[in-house]
Order: sequence, then structure tokens, then C-alpha cells
Amino acid sequence: MKDEGRRQKSKIQNPKSQIVCLAGGVGGAKLADGLARILPPQNLTIIVNTGDDFEHLGLTVCPDLDTVMYTLAGVANPETGWGRAGESWVTMAEVSRLGGPDWFSLGDLDLAAHLTRTAMLRDGEPLTAVTRHLCQKLDIKHSLLPMCDRPAPTQIESDGRILPFQEWFVKERWQPPVTKVILPEDARATTAVIRALENAGLVIIAPSNPFVSIDPILNVYPIRAMLMDLPQAVVAVSPIIGGQAVKGPAAKMMQEMGLPVSARAAAEHYGELLDGFVFDVQDAGQLDGANVAQLSVDTWMRAQEDRVRLAQDVLTFARSLAVAT
Amino acid sequence: MKDEGRRQKSKIQNPKSQIVCLAGGVGGAKLADGLARILPPQNLTIIVNTGDDFEHLGLTVCPDLDTVMYTLAGVANPETGWGRAGESWVTMAEVSRLGGPDWFSLGDLDLAAHLTRTAMLRDGEPLTAVTRHLCQKLDIKHSLLPMCDRPAPTQIESDGRILPFQEWFVKERWQPPVTKVILPEDARATTAVIRALENAGLVIIAPSNPFVSIDPILNVYPIRAMLMDLPQAVVAVSPIIGGQAVKGPAAKMMQEMGLPVSARAAAEHYGELLDGFVFDVQDAGQLDGANVAQLSVDTWMRAQEDRVRLAQDVLTFARSLAVAT
Repeated sequence: MKDEGRRQKSKIQNPKSQIVCLAGGVGGAKLADGLARILPPQNLTIIVNTGDDFEHLGLTVCPDLDTVMYTLAGVANPETGWGRAGESWVTMAEVSRLGGPDWFSLGDLDLAAHLTRTAMLRDGEPLTAVTRHLCQKLDIKHSLLPMCDRPAPTQIESDGRILPFQEWFVKERWQPPVTKVILPEDARATTAVIRALENAGLVIIAPSNPFVSIDPILNVYPIRAMLMDLPQAVVAVSPIIGGQAVKGPAAKMMQEMGLPVSARAAAEHYGELLDGFVFDVQDAGQLDGANVAQLSVDTWMRAQEDRVRLAQDVLTFARSLAVAT
Repeated sequence: MKDEGRRQKSKIQNPKSQIVCLAGGVGGAKLADGLARILPPQNLTIIVNTGDDFEHLGLTVCPDLDTVMYTLAGVANPETGWGRAGESWVTMAEVSRLGGPDWFSLGDLDLAAHLTRTAMLRDGEPLTAVTRHLCQKLDIKHSLLPMCDRPAPTQIESDGRILPFQEWFVKERWQPPVTKVILPEDARATTAVIRALENAGLVIIAPSNPFVSIDPILNVYPIRAMLMDLPQAVVAVSPIIGGQAVKGPAAKMMQEMGLPVSARAAAEHYGELLDGFVFDVQDAGQLDGANVAQLSVDTWMRAQEDRVRLAQDVLTFARSLAVAT
């Protein structure tokens, strides 16, 4: 009854005009940025993976959240895909000299976000409020939501070893073969995330790693169930182009987990969650016969204008599906 | 019985050749540095106040410990009395921009020590081991010991308010009048501190603030009792010169707590703990008739050579007392 009432209210306040983007790291950040350049702030919410968050040197570090935040703020480092543009490394060089843990690079500007976040979390602010605060300070108008307020750490199982995500991803440079991605059983979505999904007309799954960026979001209760039920259309953008990942370990992981490295395998991974799938022209024909609406366009986001073009293509396609339902 | 056995053993291993210096911030660091330039590493141990340690921005910050460490390493900022020489402020400026707590200045180089320390503490290393590690990396040959491994926070009572030490000292620039200094009841010395005092022939109390630098050390069980019993001589250097503190709130605190602001009042504060007291020539005659051995010399450490000269004066005086007993 209570849920019904709330859902009803949401619908009245907001006639499903909301677009929600699920995003992880670099690819997700780029598409989110493209969407933010098209959509007014009140119409777009970006829900970001926090499964890669970790405690390091006493600080709470949220790599995916920061990549999206820095990208939307226009202060991201375009070369690395992580961290800040115009970064300096005074502290990190001295940490190395002092024999501290230096395997995870934290630039001087980047550190400020981790310090500020950690201070606010210690003061009892939830991560959602901290993220909103940082976004305000960075002049980000759109809504950026961590999937969880509480830690929901992703772990990697590799040949019997279980590694915290960043130890596998950064410390061991994603080289240990992945047997399994282990997601927490008790992760719960924040009220803000649930509210955004209740109001969502369209959900766009960004071209982030399906296993370690998107699955951790879908795993958070009740996000997957809400995506099955609520929006008029769920559309994913392929993270695989021409049998390769643009960046990061997605292709390598697919191989190691016995999947074909293809756009089609990515679509099949999301399965019945999807109403539509967007993939690259290089892979045209690959989804022939698949039971999902398809759009084949240039999905490689090299320059700023590519982000906007792809975002527009995805939006137009997704809206056509929403109208059709 | 056990204590007797241990004490006996210490005496056999080490015929009281050890000199222990109790130190707080700037003044303590300077005299400790002077002593370190005279004494071989195996003969000097510096025990440092950690009552001013605090958790800030997720990091364990140890201001007195770092002031002594940076001073001995020759990397201290000579202008400020805290922090590193040649410091930069990239992170702190960005913390300010992001609306984080910026009342306690942490330079980029300085931050590296707090990050490395915090990482090691989180890994389960005690503060004593962390300090030894940092000192090794900074090429400090002498032994620097935190008085405690566990937090032993000093608090300031001011007109009914109770303030954590750094909030009073830095955030409120030691302006709130001090009613009382509150020291923890359960602080225990480390094994390393106890061992150093067991082997101490001389203990030198540096010209640090008696109330918030030295008393917190003496308050740590069983340091005060060991100083009453064990060393051949305990000598303090006056933190008050000509009715003023060289730096910091010592004089202001004495006034607020109803004490005369004088070298003599400082000596009387330590009372029967002292075998000898060293004070400035400006205050000559002030301790006439006091029941403590006295040395009146130039105690103001302006330049590097002043530190060595004062250290030599104090050592010669203290050794003469030790021989006399």
C-alpha cells in the first residue's frame, strides 16, 4: 500500500520525463557527459557504480564516481581516463619517498576530493549528500547519485584468490585472470536512487564494463527489479567495438569467463532487461535475429562532439521504443 | 620482583649513559636538535608529546611529533615552526574550493607523512613503529618515541566549554581563556618509552609548554613516577624568558590559570621532579633561594648554533648534578 501510494505520487509529480543513466568509469562518464549536454538538469539523473570504492591511506576513494564527476565538471584528465587535468604529484612523490603505499596514484588536486569526502563522511553525512556537495562546488548541475550510501565492494575471484577490486584492477593491473566477479548480497539502493528510478521514463546503460561497472549497480536491491518493471524502455550501449573493449578489461574478462568477445555477447549478458541495444557500425549484422530492438551507429567517443552525437542517437532510439510500448 | 629483575638487567646492559629528552613543539624540537648534534644516536632518546594528535580529514595527524621529526631531519619550515620547508599548497587550496575543512593547514609534502602514517596504522602497526619507519626514511639516526601508542588526547576547558586541543590551539588560535587542561586518565607509556627511562642517566625537559606539551607526557603512566625514581638528574629548561613565551600560549595560559608569568613559576610548576633548572640570563636572580640547582645562560635559540650551545650548556650542567648525586 505504502509503495503504491508513493509510486502514484511520483507519477503525478513527474510524468516519466526522467532519464536515468547507469554509469561506471570512462565510457560511462563520456556518455553521461553527452547526455548532460543535451538534457536539462531536472531531466537527467546519473547513477554511478560505487562497487570500486575503497579505503586507502585512511581516505574513502570513489574512482568511478570521481571519473564521472570530474568529466561532467570538465576537469577530468583526458589522457588517463581518471584523475584531474593539470594535476601535480607533490604528495604522492613524497609518499613514495616515505615508503608509503604508492600503487594507487592520487594527484594533489584529486586528493582534495578524497579528503573533503572523508571529512564529511566522518561527520556523518551520507555519500549521496557528500556527492551532491562536491558536485555543487564543481558547478555540476545534473544529479549524480552513488548507487549506495554504504560500502558495497566488488571482489574479483582469480584462481582461488579473492582480491578487493582495486587491488586487482590497479595494483595487479587487471592481469590475474577472472574466474568470477563477487558482488555483495546486502547492497541496498538509496532513497534518491529509488526515487529516480520510480520517475524514470528511460534508462540508459552506458558503455561501461558490464561485469564490474554495471552489474554492481544492477545487483543493488531493488534496482534490477525496478528496471524490469518501471521504465518505458531500457537501452544499453555496447562496451565492445569490433571484438575489443575501448579501454579496460571488459574484453579480457569475457574471454576468461568463457564468453564470446562481441557486442552480441554483451547484449545477451543483459538479456531480458533490455528493450533496445545500441552497438557500433563495425559490428553491423552481429545482432541479426536477436530478440531486442537495435541501433547500429558510430559508438566510439573520441572527441567531445562524439559524446553528444552518440547521446542524441541513443536518446532518439530509446524514445522511439518508449513511444512504441 | 619482575620489575626489579628488569631494572637490574637494564642497569647491567647500559650503565645509565642514556639521555632522554622530553619534548613538545617548536622549542622542544630545537633543543632536541641541539642535543642530537652533540650526542651519538645510541645515547639520546627523544620522547614526544602526542596529546595534540588528532584525526582530521580521515588522517592521523601528530603535530608535535612531526615538528620534532622534521626539525631533526632538517626539513622543517623555519618561518612557521610547523610543517615542511619548501612546502606547496595545491591540495589544501582545492580542499578550500571544495568546501572541505581548511582550518588546519596541511601542505602537500606534510600530507605525505600523514597519509603514510595513517596507512601503516590502519595496517595495524603501532605509532612507535610508524615513527621509527618515517624517521628512517628521513635519515634521522636518533631515537624518536611517541609517548603513547594509543590516543591520549589533551582537552582544553574554557569557560565551561571543553575543546579538543587542536580546535582550541589552531581553529580558535588559542584565544579562548584556559580554565584547565584536561589530560586522559588512562594513558600508558609504550614499552620503548619505559625502556628508555629505565636506562636514563639524565632526563632533560625541553623548553616546551609545561601545560600542553610536557604535562601530557608526565601524565602518561608511569613516566612521572619513573622520573621521580630513576634518573640521576632531571633538568628542565625554562619556556619563559623575560616574562614571555618565545612562541605559543604558555605565558597567556599561566596568566589565565592565575600563575605568575615567570621562569620561577615554571620551575615551581615542575616542583620536586627537578634536580636542576636552566633559565635565561634575562631572568638572573629570579630563582634565588629556590630549592633547586640552577644555571642561568642565554636560552633563546634563534639560530642553529644557539641550539647546540644551549644543548651543551644543559648537558654539562645536568652531568655535574648527576655526578654530585
